[in-house]
Amino acid sequence: MSDTPTLRPVCIIGNGLIGGSLMRDLAAHGERVFGYTHSGAGARKAAADGFDVSTDLPGVLRRAEEVGALIVIAVPFDVVAEVLDAIAAHAPTCGITDVVSVKRPVHDLVAQRGMLERYVGGHPMAGTEASGWAASQEGLFVGAAWVVTYDYAAEVERVPAAWADLFREVCTMAALVGAESVPVSAVKHDEAVARVSHLPHVIAESLSIVGDRGRTLAQSLAAGSFKGATRVAGTQPSLVRNMCETNAEPLVGVLDEFIEVLQDARDSLAAEHPSMEHLAEAGHRAHVRMSARSGARRESVSPVAISSRPVMRVHPGGPGWVQQLQQIESLGGRVEVF
Amino acid sequence: MSDTPTLRPVCIIGNGLIGGSLMRDLAAHGERVFGYTHSGAGARKAAADGFDVSTDLPGVLRRAEEVGALIVIAVPFDVVAEVLDAIAAHAPTCGITDVVSVKRPVHDLVAQRGMLERYVGGHPMAGTEASGWAASQEGLFVGAAWVVTYDYAAEVERVPAAWADLFREVCTMAALVGAESVPVSAVKHDEAVARVSHLPHVIAESLSIVGDRGRTLAQSLAAGSFKGATRVAGTQPSLVRNMCETNAEPLVGVLDEFIEVLQDARDSLAAEHPSMEHLAEAGHRAHVRMSARSGARRESVSPVAISSRPVMRVHPGGPGWVQQLQQIESLGGRVEVF
Repeated sequence: MSDTPTLRPVCIIGNGLIGGSLMRDLAAHGERVFGYTHSGAGARKAAADGFDVSTDLPGVLRRAEEVGALIVIAVPFDVVAEVLDAIAAHAPTCGITDVVSVKRPVHDLVAQRGMLERYVGGHPMAGTEASGWAASQEGLFVGAAWVVTYDYAAEVERVPAAWADLFREVCTMAALVGAESVPVSAVKHDEAVARVSHLPHVIAESLSIVGDRGRTLAQSLAAGSFKGATRVAGTQPSLVRNMCETNAEPLVGVLDEFIEVLQDARDSLAAEHPSMEHLAEAGHRAHVRMSARSGARRESVSPVAISSRPVMRVHPGGPGWVQQLQQIESLGGRVEVF
Repeated sequence: MSDTPTLRPVCIIGNGLIGGSLMRDLAAHGERVFGYTHSGAGARKAAADGFDVSTDLPGVLRRAEEVGALIVIAVPFDVVAEVLDAIAAHAPTCGITDVVSVKRPVHDLVAQRGMLERYVGGHPMAGTEASGWAASQEGLFVGAAWVVTYDYAAEVERVPAAWADLFREVCTMAALVGAESVPVSAVKHDEAVARVSHLPHVIAESLSIVGDRGRTLAQSLAAGSFKGATRVAGTQPSLVRNMCETNAEPLVGVLDEFIEVLQDARDSLAAEHPSMEHLAEAGHRAHVRMSARSGARRESVSPVAISSRPVMRVHPGGPGWVQQLQQIESLGGRVEVF
């Protein structure tokens, strides 16, 4: 824990798994952090754990405005519009980021309210199937990608200095909690998470349904492969709906791709001489490629965690910095800000 | 470790992940165990670890015959016929079990050779995506279901005492390594594993392919939900093919079910008002049911592992014992033999 805070005060709206874990990490690093939750029970639990959480949204936002806080929106998507309206009313100058799992729909809500010049989108690629303050934990974000969007900077002719500062602050916050800032435009983010996050959630729900039809014998025999593929079906249905329904268009596209691959495999297996050769070989090659990046860290013999994402040092607001972000995005790389 | 062996000597044919782990566990419990591998390098590695493994299959089987060993076939399915022929030639009276992941095709090969009266099928529902002796480990089977087939006993009018003894021995071996014996007929086993094991493997391969199409950005953003659902795509393609191709008929059936569930979800998401309500609610309920059984053990606060599978004590060869097995099968339960 350091004695001098690195960040401006942080005001977290929503104290579920992600918001709560962020609050714990920031507090553990000596940062000034306070927040809001809609639930009285949630606020009491957080208070019992020593955190500064209130159920008075206007009050919390007025305090954020007074201290010049960075506001982090950490609520499900269906409440984001309401929170943005409250921010417009009670915290008219604070910088805003969020941790919502879709980015274009949030970007659109922010744009509709004319707040883009003080918004930098975020999405930490971390979580568990549990939810709520009780599930929050320190260290949840270590090694995770923390998506940081930069659409506004790519659209305007001249990026305001305050926006560049806000971008730097969000990246610094991600680094503080052990995550790696990955710059991505909202549209590309939504397509990528449809593929690697929302599709796996649809699969987990669907496989749970099909497995369950095998009744008690299937329950008894289900082992690692089934459990691994269905774990996230333990997520609250409302959270899964929020993610998938707000990202329906890209998700339908990758579902069509996935169904086509399955249908081909099904037809090869239904042939006179059943074969899985193509699927097993291509799937294994794809798995090796997908694991190459994320796997390196854990298998490293070094005691220091070594990131397998390429890194670029970027000075937000400096010459050519937005082009640098576009370049690192194309590599799935991370930025270190200075 | 106990000083007096519980089992007759055990002869394991094949020392990959499952055969090797079984050998390690049995040796650790003071049982007499030896085996065969086709690979000189594999035999040397096992020997270096202090195990008695030879590359001379006829020699190993003659030794099994001399000491009255229980033979465990632990090779991929495509080599099983060859191993059975060698057993017929060199170990004409030994009891035989196996750990192959399909049961009716193995049963048919055994039947074709007229060896059913000395065969009890087995399948431990345990494993990792790694393979080979190097991946073998002690404790792999703790808490796992160990399927034990009883088709022969259900078909014959009078079960020979030697067969009942063999059934007891296989269950005792499973219990020794910490597994739970789940009696299942070959056909029901193959249908259930198509649903909860082979389908997850097909999904893992297919999702890896679709994820990989998202290139470096998708690689960078893939987190827990993707990794959990694709882990087993790290399995050797030849092993996945062996499992799925030999169980093609039940697997095609559950693939059709799965594709239908996905297609319905896709259509609901493509509607004017995208909805995942049905899938998310039904999937979550199914997940809760599927986890109820297997989850109890790990979440138990008791220091003693408590199985969530119903148990029945059975005396193989005793009055009505085959009916008892059928009854416990319908519950996905386990047997303790005496």
